[in-house]
Amino acid sequence: MTAPAPTGVFCAALTPLDAEGNPHLQNFTAHCRWLLDEGCTGVAMLGTTGEANSFSLAERMGLLEAALDSGIAPNRLLPGTGVAALTDTVTLTKHALSVGVTTVVMLPPFFYKGVSDEGVVAAYSEIVERVGDDRLRVVLYHIPQVSAVPIAHDVIARLRERYPAVFVGIKDSAGDLANMTAMVARFPGLAVLAGADPLMLPLLRAGGAGAITATTNLVARDLRFVFDHWADPEKAAEVEAAQARVVAMRERASRFAQMASLKALVAERTGDPAWRRLRPPLVALTEAERTQLLASA
Amino acid sequence: MTAPAPTGVFCAALTPLDAEGNPHLQNFTAHCRWLLDEGCTGVAMLGTTGEANSFSLAERMGLLEAALDSGIAPNRLLPGTGVAALTDTVTLTKHALSVGVTTVVMLPPFFYKGVSDEGVVAAYSEIVERVGDDRLRVVLYHIPQVSAVPIAHDVIARLRERYPAVFVGIKDSAGDLANMTAMVARFPGLAVLAGADPLMLPLLRAGGAGAITATTNLVARDLRFVFDHWADPEKAAEVEAAQARVVAMRERASRFAQMASLKALVAERTGDPAWRRLRPPLVALTEAERTQLLASA
Repeated sequence: MTAPAPTGVFCAALTPLDAEGNPHLQNFTAHCRWLLDEGCTGVAMLGTTGEANSFSLAERMGLLEAALDSGIAPNRLLPGTGVAALTDTVTLTKHALSVGVTTVVMLPPFFYKGVSDEGVVAAYSEIVERVGDDRLRVVLYHIPQVSAVPIAHDVIARLRERYPAVFVGIKDSAGDLANMTAMVARFPGLAVLAGADPLMLPLLRAGGAGAITATTNLVARDLRFVFDHWADPEKAAEVEAAQARVVAMRERASRFAQMASLKALVAERTGDPAWRRLRPPLVALTEAERTQLLASA
Repeated sequence: MTAPAPTGVFCAALTPLDAEGNPHLQNFTAHCRWLLDEGCTGVAMLGTTGEANSFSLAERMGLLEAALDSGIAPNRLLPGTGVAALTDTVTLTKHALSVGVTTVVMLPPFFYKGVSDEGVVAAYSEIVERVGDDRLRVVLYHIPQVSAVPIAHDVIARLRERYPAVFVGIKDSAGDLANMTAMVARFPGLAVLAGADPLMLPLLRAGGAGAITATTNLVARDLRFVFDHWADPEKAAEVEAAQARVVAMRERASRFAQMASLKALVAERTGDPAWRRLRPPLVALTEAERTQLLASA
């Protein structure tokens, strides 16, 4: 049994914290279930928006197990498992497979800068070999403005040539539609997922597979509507309106620090101020910022 | 018992690999002991040069234990324990303390970019609180060209005000002597250690504490001579000659990728080609590069 390439609207889920600054498992699983109820195809947990790289291996595995224990099907979870150390990435990926989750989103090793394409290919290859599980499906993660390690098209080509069944998709968070459409054109069958909500619609028109985004923590229903109906001429006005709401919410949440803003808005929606917490090095909005954010349209 | 602020010549030790790409513990401990025999004050293992962030938590703890098991005194080891996730940093730091190593070199969390000073202070503070051990001594690690998270002087000031006994030093690998001397002037008692061999001498003249460097994997004896005799007018010519050899070796090892070059040169010195291996995303020199490197003066 192999998982298909991921297609749809995935939420880069936020990770709530308890009073001690540890993952708040109950709030997390409630949020994941709400996201699915809102129409998300799946939950891309433990990504950049989820502060994944601020959590230990044990915390990450605990969050994945909590999501599954809450009744979410393994094929609706797309956990991030790529960390700086290749062998830790192997541990997280093997763990995901061990609990039935076969598709993961994988950052390249991100500590060293200016690494060669050869080095990136070698890292991903070594991970696939060490995981050694035919069920594994990997969504590459291109977010050079944070990882500082871009995924070059030649890297994708070499990985898909070597492991055609494994590298099924890429999340492109660089915000450059031309890069996404170029990948759609060059790599038939590769699921290209937009990392920014506003770009999903033009990417779908170019043959893309959907999106993994942060704003879906707030407006999943609208982005799912766009995904379901973008090609239907009779729904054009509704699609346009939904897209406009998504774009407006993304702008609203980008006025101050993005993750802190998203958490402040979820805190407002749920009525639970615990949601405002972030783990260092990220910090919560100041009260003045939060007041301004909540007063904004 | 508290460790004093680190002063002297520390080697940012390379980490050799075995045929499976795992840490080669025997070669590692032999190298550490050779470094101490060559005159290193101590071994700053598991830093950038040591590919630390390419190794899992378990591998890092195994390397530290191997060094201790080989008979190296805990106070001659300065392991790096700073990783992207605060809670993993806590695990590594607690482990070091548990085996008697009290002074560690600590990167800030390095996944997110553009984080605030407040966030960096919060991260280090949270780590100190969670470690909760009065013996802990931290050398901050400023290497913005790799970590992309600089350690601002105001961050140092706030951390030393809050934890005066803990934050005893800083390794500055940015290569800017003016930044190092400014820290010497602003923070009396803070051990400022140059991350680049050629800068140790001018830094010592300005009141610095020494160096943690990569080239000492090859020329520790010379850098130690500079450290011991820089202020002795009668040794001026010998100091100058030793410094020139250090500078020349650093230039030689910087012509191609630095860590790969250092490993190729250690392989040549030891006659053990196993030393040439690097862990992805870093890669070994090509044969052509290695031939050119070995042929160079």
